[in-house]
Amino acid sequence: MNKHIVLQTDFGLSDGAVSAMNGVAYSVDPALRISDLTHEIPQYNIWEASYRLYQTVSYWPEDTVFISVVDPGVGTDRLSIVAKTNAGHYIVTPNNGTLTHLSDSIGIKEVRAIDEKVNRLPRSGESYTFHGRDIYAFTGARLAAGIIDFHEVGPELEIEAIINLPIPKASYAESKIHGNIDILDIRFGNLWTNINRELFIEAGIQYGDMLEVTIEHNGNNIYKNLITFDRSFAERRLGEALLFVNSIDKIGVAINQGSFADAYHIRTGVSWKIIIEKMGQRVKP
Amino acid sequence: MNKHIVLQTDFGLSDGAVSAMNGVAYSVDPALRISDLTHEIPQYNIWEASYRLYQTVSYWPEDTVFISVVDPGVGTDRLSIVAKTNAGHYIVTPNNGTLTHLSDSIGIKEVRAIDEKVNRLPRSGESYTFHGRDIYAFTGARLAAGIIDFHEVGPELEIEAIINLPIPKASYAESKIHGNIDILDIRFGNLWTNINRELFIEAGIQYGDMLEVTIEHNGNNIYKNLITFDRSFAERRLGEALLFVNSIDKIGVAINQGSFADAYHIRTGVSWKIIIEKMGQRVKP
Amino acid sequence: MNKHIVLQTDFGLSDGAVSAMNGVAYSVDPALRISDLTHEIPQYNIWEASYRLYQTVSYWPEDTVFISVVDPGVGTDRLSIVAKTNAGHYIVTPNNGTLTHLSDSIGIKEVRAIDEKVNRLPRSGESYTFHGRDIYAFTGARLAAGIIDFHEVGPELEIEAIINLPIPKASYAESKIHGNIDILDIRFGNLWTNINRELFIEAGIQYGDMLEVTIEHNGNNIYKNLITFDRSFAERRLGEALLFVNSIDKIGVAINQGSFADAYHIRTGVSWKIIIEKMGQRVKP
Repeated sequence: MNKHIVLQTDFGLSDGAVSAMNGVAYSVDPALRISDLTHEIPQYNIWEASYRLYQTVSYWPEDTVFISVVDPGVGTDRLSIVAKTNAGHYIVTPNNGTLTHLSDSIGIKEVRAIDEKVNRLPRSGESYTFHGRDIYAFTGARLAAGIIDFHEVGPELEIEAIINLPIPKASYAESKIHGNIDILDIRFGNLWTNINRELFIEAGIQYGDMLEVTIEHNGNNIYKNLITFDRSFAERRLGEALLFVNSIDKIGVAINQGSFADAYHIRTGVSWKIIIEKMGQRVKP
Repeated sequence: MNKHIVLQTDFGLSDGAVSAMNGVAYSVDPALRISDLTHEIPQYNIWEASYRLYQTVSYWPEDTVFISVVDPGVGTDRLSIVAKTNAGHYIVTPNNGTLTHLSDSIGIKEVRAIDEKVNRLPRSGESYTFHGRDIYAFTGARLAAGIIDFHEVGPELEIEAIINLPIPKASYAESKIHGNIDILDIRFGNLWTNINRELFIEAGIQYGDMLEVTIEHNGNNIYKNLITFDRSFAERRLGEALLFVNSIDKIGVAINQGSFADAYHIRTGVSWKIIIEKMGQRVKP
Repeated sequence: MNKHIVLQTDFGLSDGAVSAMNGVAYSVDPALRISDLTHEIPQYNIWEASYRLYQTVSYWPEDTVFISVVDPGVGTDRLSIVAKTNAGHYIVTPNNGTLTHLSDSIGIKEVRAIDEKVNRLPRSGESYTFHGRDIYAFTGARLAAGIIDFHEVGPELEIEAIINLPIPKASYAESKIHGNIDILDIRFGNLWTNINRELFIEAGIQYGDMLEVTIEHNGNNIYKNLITFDRSFAERRLGEALLFVNSIDKIGVAINQGSFADAYHIRTGVSWKIIIEKMGQRVKP
């Protein structure tokens, strides 16, 4: 084990919750190296927790232990699990859909239920509301430190026992690509779709092409206009829209140095559809 | 010393102040391990700084050095001190009430005034406004690194010299528990009271009991309604209120997946009272 | 190399971008020590990125590698560079003005263009939008880890090739000091001017002096009132204004425990001027 832990929660950083998790982990082994993915996951938003793992896990070394605590079901009989990805990362999480995008991309090789009788912070018996500290940080730290092996986490589960959220798939038919707005690049207001770069290749779309982009919410048109597909933001003027390949090889929609999401009040999820149709080669201005 | 430092301030993370403190500490010893408690303490809010230490310190290993800089009195003759808790943690802080909750819980074993003639960043003589960097980070780092021993911090003070804020105590009388709203679980909007779980036991209150909860602000009723006492959030419906034992063994008030504080515009402090009275066993719906 | 990396971006911490940069760096060398300067630089604000480096770099040990990614020109032919300061720090950044204040203060000793043919994350070829991860984090990590020497970054450039933003200079003439509002101490709302303490000495201004302070925006007076020059905030009453020497030896303007910037709607930049004139010795109240 490389002793790296990466934490993700919806706790924010304004109080002591994340620091208590850090303290529990360092008490297990002071030589651990703990980083933060984000603690700003919107409260109870399992989809976004799953997506942020997908966006980052593959850039981390094998053996890194991710602890993700977005847990609307704390106190129910939802299982606490540790999954091992096909690339050798460990994810400590409630079994509530947080593994959705990793299951669908790099894939899960093995998953175990946390045996809370042995893998629980000593003397934490009376609190039923902070499993992030008492179970997840404690178990993740012991795994990362090499104090327990993966099989000592608890009994192995079938891969099929992992709960996954439905993932809408993008498609190409009759010269139109149909997709969804999966998530935002929050700080910049760019839309990240579920449309892979490969689908653009299949549709014969190349850099410089002019495309008609329609964005619908619950069947209502929110946006319908022509946008070019560009290699980078720098090819557009300030304030001009573009389509681009984002950092995880999906199609994004942006305004150069503006916020597409704010400009048109666009949010994310299965009710937000995007349709892209090729209109012909754009003449460079 | 285990070389762990934990920083807390009201500086926020938008500018370079916290990073300058990190740089000073790593310049003392590049092998230090520096974590953040929070830098989002509301400006000058000593009570909240004290509470966040109380919420987290006991989860960290012995010898960890906490540096807490919430310092409305920078430049006055308030002392800069280092306290050693009964559990062996060190707290570097202005002597302004920041130790209130630790004094009251694990307790302070020994306290020393920082001798600023020797424990001050070299060549920082002309700035009188950033003791966090020039005195606290420098001194905390040298202590954590083992460059100075605790007695080299400066002269020992009487424990009674520690300034503590008044802490209202919860009480049980005539079948009512009287307490205060101490602080919020900020991200989720849960109220954290100063009522210990033990007081609920003394009052004969058990999981499942229906309680009448009154919240007063400056004598005005803000909330008065029936709430059940539950083991976990999962026992309530979405949007339903509950009382629960929080992560530090006090009674909390929440709305399952909502914000109790926002719902009823409730804030914290001595002017916010809570009265809890047992009404009888609740029939499970 | 001391293996310390300090990251600064305008990405925020709400999604996975910064964590992906961390992962790339730790994949280069798991023993690196990575800290954050800030990720809250306002989007595309090169001036503020430059200022935050100036505010912090000199407090860090020699050999520390700073990676600053505020990059409105990603995808243009702006160069990616690594600069070595006269004090031996390395700054990995787009060549877009981010080095302005360091050039003007400690000075740059040597600068090299990043050769992206060799210094680019393997298999990141198709994304043109996330150089922070694919080029800057990767190159900075390899430099900090000692895998490449500074000369292996790429070809040396003339120091004059570094792009610097114009820096207005403060001046003293006819008993008035003319300066600019450079930046805010964000959390507290203090104004930080470009007026050095030395200029106050030249003007014969001492602690306790009463000064007339005029703040202009685009030629309009925004504020004009008397303020005293104090050693520390504690010498003013709560809510009273003061001038002080800030943590980087410049003159600041504050309200004791209030926000001067919010009180008078003051922002920063070349259009915001400040004029300070000595009115005579203040009688202490």
